Amino acid sequence: MPELRKDPVTEGWVIVSTERRKRPTDFPSLPEEEDHAGCPFCPGNEDKTPPEIIAFGRDGGKPNTPGWKVRVVPNKFPALGIEGELDRRGLGMYDLMNGIGAHEVIIETPDHNRHLKDSTVEEIQLVLRAYQQRMEDLLKDPRLRYTLIFKNQGGQAGASLHHPHSQLIATPVTPKKVREELIGSQRYWELKERCVFCDIIRQEQDTGDRIVYENEAFVAFCPFASRFPFEVWILPKKHSPDFHTITTGHIPFLADMLRIVLGKLASALGNPQYNYILHTGPARFARRGYWETIEQDYHWHLEIIPRLTKIAGFEWGTSFYINPTPPEEAASYLREREV
Amino acid sequence: MPELRKDPVTEGWVIVSTERRKRPTDFPSLPEEEDHAGCPFCPGNEDKTPPEIIAFGRDGGKPNTPGWKVRVVPNKFPALGIEGELDRRGLGMYDLMNGIGAHEVIIETPDHNRHLKDSTVEEIQLVLRAYQQRMEDLLKDPRLRYTLIFKNQGGQAGASLHHPHSQLIATPVTPKKVREELIGSQRYWELKERCVFCDIIRQEQDTGDRIVYENEAFVAFCPFASRFPFEVWILPKKHSPDFHTITTGHIPFLADMLRIVLGKLASALGNPQYNYILHTGPARFARRGYWETIEQDYHWHLEIIPRLTKIAGFEWGTSFYINPTPPEEAASYLREREV
Repeated sequence: MPELRKDPVTEGWVIVSTERRKRPTDFPSLPEEEDHAGCPFCPGNEDKTPPEIIAFGRDGGKPNTPGWKVRVVPNKFPALGIEGELDRRGLGMYDLMNGIGAHEVIIETPDHNRHLKDSTVEEIQLVLRAYQQRMEDLLKDPRLRYTLIFKNQGGQAGASLHHPHSQLIATPVTPKKVREELIGSQRYWELKERCVFCDIIRQEQDTGDRIVYENEAFVAFCPFASRFPFEVWILPKKHSPDFHTITTGHIPFLADMLRIVLGKLASALGNPQYNYILHTGPARFARRGYWETIEQDYHWHLEIIPRLTKIAGFEWGTSFYINPTPPEEAASYLREREV
Repeated sequence: MPELRKDPVTEGWVIVSTERRKRPTDFPSLPEEEDHAGCPFCPGNEDKTPPEIIAFGRDGGKPNTPGWKVRVVPNKFPALGIEGELDRRGLGMYDLMNGIGAHEVIIETPDHNRHLKDSTVEEIQLVLRAYQQRMEDLLKDPRLRYTLIFKNQGGQAGASLHHPHSQLIATPVTPKKVREELIGSQRYWELKERCVFCDIIRQEQDTGDRIVYENEAFVAFCPFASRFPFEVWILPKKHSPDFHTITTGHIPFLADMLRIVLGKLASALGNPQYNYILHTGPARFARRGYWETIEQDYHWHLEIIPRLTKIAGFEWGTSFYINPTPPEEAASYLREREV
């Protein structure tokens, strides 16, 4: 008998379908390596991207030259443009504004084939520091309400380039899914006067059957209402609404967590394509207007979604997902994998 | 300069990205034909599906034998099961229930390679009558709150079989996306005492630049905040919350509409993969509890989504879409196509 499970934050329902049960070997795996010829993100090709915003690891060299370890550049084909006034207006009954925002690329490594899972904790820390630094900088721009950081790994996951990179999009509106999470957390706080994510962490630690990995500062588990097979969430154990306030002491633990969890996914599923998305609180100025209580009721986290199944009309039309792998099974496979 | 546009019903924002503009010829097209060997939906193979629920066009023959024109069968690998009690329960802080529901397949034609766009108005009418009849029947089941009808055309759109078919999933909960639309329409009604969809139709008819096709009873247009390139919505011109109350007189106009719009999409985009999803009001009993006003504020419609772009982490994580084809351009291409 399949089960219907409700996400306690967004209240979306998921069908966990045992009839269509899938095991890790049922999913296709992918080649890890690709030739780097012509790659605009490789060292030596710095002039093929717009001029860099920041770079780490280049010891005294000039900007836009090789020697960097992590490099952040504007997206060459940006979805949003950084120049101009934010012009909110109506068009008959409709609302629109001009597409002000930032769209940046975080090039995670000079090595064309060095995926995050194969990087050292030190290397991943640099990537996380780049995320943090760019968010802090963009928070100062009063036009922008939200900074979204995400990674598309593999063509099916939306990546158009193989070279390991993440993206940042800062928007003048709070995206709907984020708003839903904020509203859901707020509702839970009003009912219980506790953070819903803190409660989830405690319950997951109590039962243990969906836990994937824990270290001193972070916990990873397959969520109860996983929408996708092998979906994994990473949360800081200590309550915190905003990723960008992460302390220098906690960054190594998050880097360790990412390396281990991505390694376990790669080992269990054979190098799957995936997306991860950083869910963090909105920019400070927007918060004052809308989310007075966010400091206490929202809890930043990272959602990792292996791209194993196709999203069909049903899922798109309804936000109602069918997941063929119970999260308890997925977590059990992942726990056992040595990285 | 890209534009940010807001959907007036769900309040989701969309980036209409002119930097990444795509024209119809930028999208891949697909082969139309496939060998029918072993297809469980072809005539003669009726024993390869579970026993049929209804069939149209078989003149006096026995059930589960050839001669039918449209045939409805239970899904062989159902996501939800029809037998049992609806057992809503908690599990610590989580909510779940057993997966009660219906999952059916509407086989649209006996011909393995006869797509809906190539069918006659008479043939499409039979498919629509099958949708209507199955919805009316499932409305009687007090356990079920919503009946979703959708079509996945092509493997990337989630179809696992080529033979033209639609699916029906009836669920004991109202899917989140549907609830969002109901809440959005209700909010608009409270503000204006008008149906938001009726207002949209009037505005689209006034400006005309997003209209794709109109007939006596229906209108098709690319919505102002189209999430996807060449997204098309079909709405009845006369206000109506529920698809299943469509009159016998209006079914031929909807069949004509579907044939023309799918034909225009195929002609402009070269037989694209697509999903369509019927957005209709929830079952009557649920409505009394939650949506007293739905008769006046909701308006059923069909959303057609060609699968031309890949959905990346950004879209999944935020419900915030980047659409590289302005809907005015898409509508203009589609209007010009002769079918």
